Amino acid sequence: MKAFCIAVDLGGSQLRIAKVQKGGQIHWQRSVSTINEGQPSQVIDQIQALVASHPDADIRGIAVAAPGPLDTRNGTVLCIPTLAGWENVAITRLLEERFKLPVLLENDAISAAVGQWRFGVGKDVTDMVYLTVSTGIGGGVISNNHVLRGVRGAAGHFGHLLLYPDSTTQCACGKMGCFEAYASGSALDAIARTLHSAGSQQERTQWHALVGNGPASAIHLAQAAMDGHEPARGVWRQQGVYLAQGIASIVHAFDPACVVLGGGVSKSYSCFADSLLEELDKRLMPAFSNVSIKQASGIETAGLLGVASLFFEHQDCS
Amino acid sequence: MKAFCIAVDLGGSQLRIAKVQKGGQIHWQRSVSTINEGQPSQVIDQIQALVASHPDADIRGIAVAAPGPLDTRNGTVLCIPTLAGWENVAITRLLEERFKLPVLLENDAISAAVGQWRFGVGKDVTDMVYLTVSTGIGGGVISNNHVLRGVRGAAGHFGHLLLYPDSTTQCACGKMGCFEAYASGSALDAIARTLHSAGSQQERTQWHALVGNGPASAIHLAQAAMDGHEPARGVWRQQGVYLAQGIASIVHAFDPACVVLGGGVSKSYSCFADSLLEELDKRLMPAFSNVSIKQASGIETAGLLGVASLFFEHQDCS
Repeated sequence: MKAFCIAVDLGGSQLRIAKVQKGGQIHWQRSVSTINEGQPSQVIDQIQALVASHPDADIRGIAVAAPGPLDTRNGTVLCIPTLAGWENVAITRLLEERFKLPVLLENDAISAAVGQWRFGVGKDVTDMVYLTVSTGIGGGVISNNHVLRGVRGAAGHFGHLLLYPDSTTQCACGKMGCFEAYASGSALDAIARTLHSAGSQQERTQWHALVGNGPASAIHLAQAAMDGHEPARGVWRQQGVYLAQGIASIVHAFDPACVVLGGGVSKSYSCFADSLLEELDKRLMPAFSNVSIKQASGIETAGLLGVASLFFEHQDCS
Repeated sequence: MKAFCIAVDLGGSQLRIAKVQKGGQIHWQRSVSTINEGQPSQVIDQIQALVASHPDADIRGIAVAAPGPLDTRNGTVLCIPTLAGWENVAITRLLEERFKLPVLLENDAISAAVGQWRFGVGKDVTDMVYLTVSTGIGGGVISNNHVLRGVRGAAGHFGHLLLYPDSTTQCACGKMGCFEAYASGSALDAIARTLHSAGSQQERTQWHALVGNGPASAIHLAQAAMDGHEPARGVWRQQGVYLAQGIASIVHAFDPACVVLGGGVSKSYSCFADSLLEELDKRLMPAFSNVSIKQASGIETAGLLGVASLFFEHQDCS
């Protein structure tokens, strides 16, 4: 008999839902903007409405990937800074009450890591690090075919590797010198907002034509770099350097076969791949030089597939 | 029936051998200075002579902990920089030929980590990082009661976390800015050699009385600090800061319950504990603030006990 679950990727901006068959086939998928200024119960309503739009009798349960910090053992969201009111929300219990089905909660970066490992570019690899470079930086680790969680379920907080201890560049976490403060999408956005005054007159005109009067962001940096805008290209070269510096520490610590780059910033991989690989070569001990860096595949669905596979695994064990 | 093995800790300066009973009792133990300027076969002779001094008929095999890099799957020492001639030495085969017994080879930091986890201060902990701060810096990780090895058996190369990317301070590995270049025993030795000209006239006299004309080292720094020598105390305060900076990254990456500090430098823990804990508090995200830092117990025997327990585990599985 075929087994299905509902996979939910609860993001700060997008709420994605899919019906996933055991084995990784997506039968349907929907996404909406997450209600981020209301109550958690309104988001639960959104989930229920999306599920109700595809009535199915054969659903085994619900698998939820969410940003943290979470208490996955108790099924509680401790806090989602980008969603109003999401503090100490017992999401597992709330969904169980609505759907009368078992619910699994997992960290979104771990879900995406598992998705890449089981269905994406990390397939057939025993040791893999997934690094998501988005608004922030996070990650998940597969070591010897096991998912690493740590004692608090908080392993893979790579955004807070200390990269520049003497720095006064503040991270979103409030600390100074974190990897995330240098190499995240937010860091790129901040640089983008200063780029209107960079380069030649022609480049400033080019930049203004691209950005207009709206706030500049990493997306503009990517477009400008592809159009040959030299200051933007320089930003991406430095981005590759910062990413490589963090990745070097990760590789020396975890000794993976590959590092998979996901998250929005990874979509611009071609803009920074050269400088990343060059810097990594400079920073890695020779024993680790055959580590491969891969761009994640199917970023939009990897988290859904990953958390669904963890749900089925959990069901089979219990 | 009781099971025994011979555990060998092949260090760059000391060669330690013990007869270890399954369960962790040491029945006898010997150590000699490792012959470090001859041939690998002379060290094999040393091992054989030490074992022959306690003839036993009930030995199941030999468990060897050695510094790396190693190829533990093939039982080969790829290189031991501190021992002449130790390049691509098939130590497992050599010992098997001599003793007609099965031989297991394991990284010395992983052996010590397992020793602390099974018999030392990490007992009853599911997630632990062992950090050895000695001539270099290395480590081993226990995650969810599994020993982390990585795909090349090289996980836990913490000495080469990139701590100061902009630095021109060279590490023993040839790269710049590694954790080891700042916080290892070698780094302390280098500072100690400059300390004759530091502080007041009285402190310079005190330092000279302690060191004499020999080369100053971390050992003198520890003695001087305990005697109230302010420049030496300042060095240890900074040592605590550097260690905390590396440990903060390790904790965010692995999410352990505790970090166990071993190696020669850890013996001076009281000299740098305050500044380490203070800096760590500054660097860690609140979610990780209950991580505990522990001084390793039984440093001289933890590696022997750890590698012996891995040997018995391997025997039971095969």
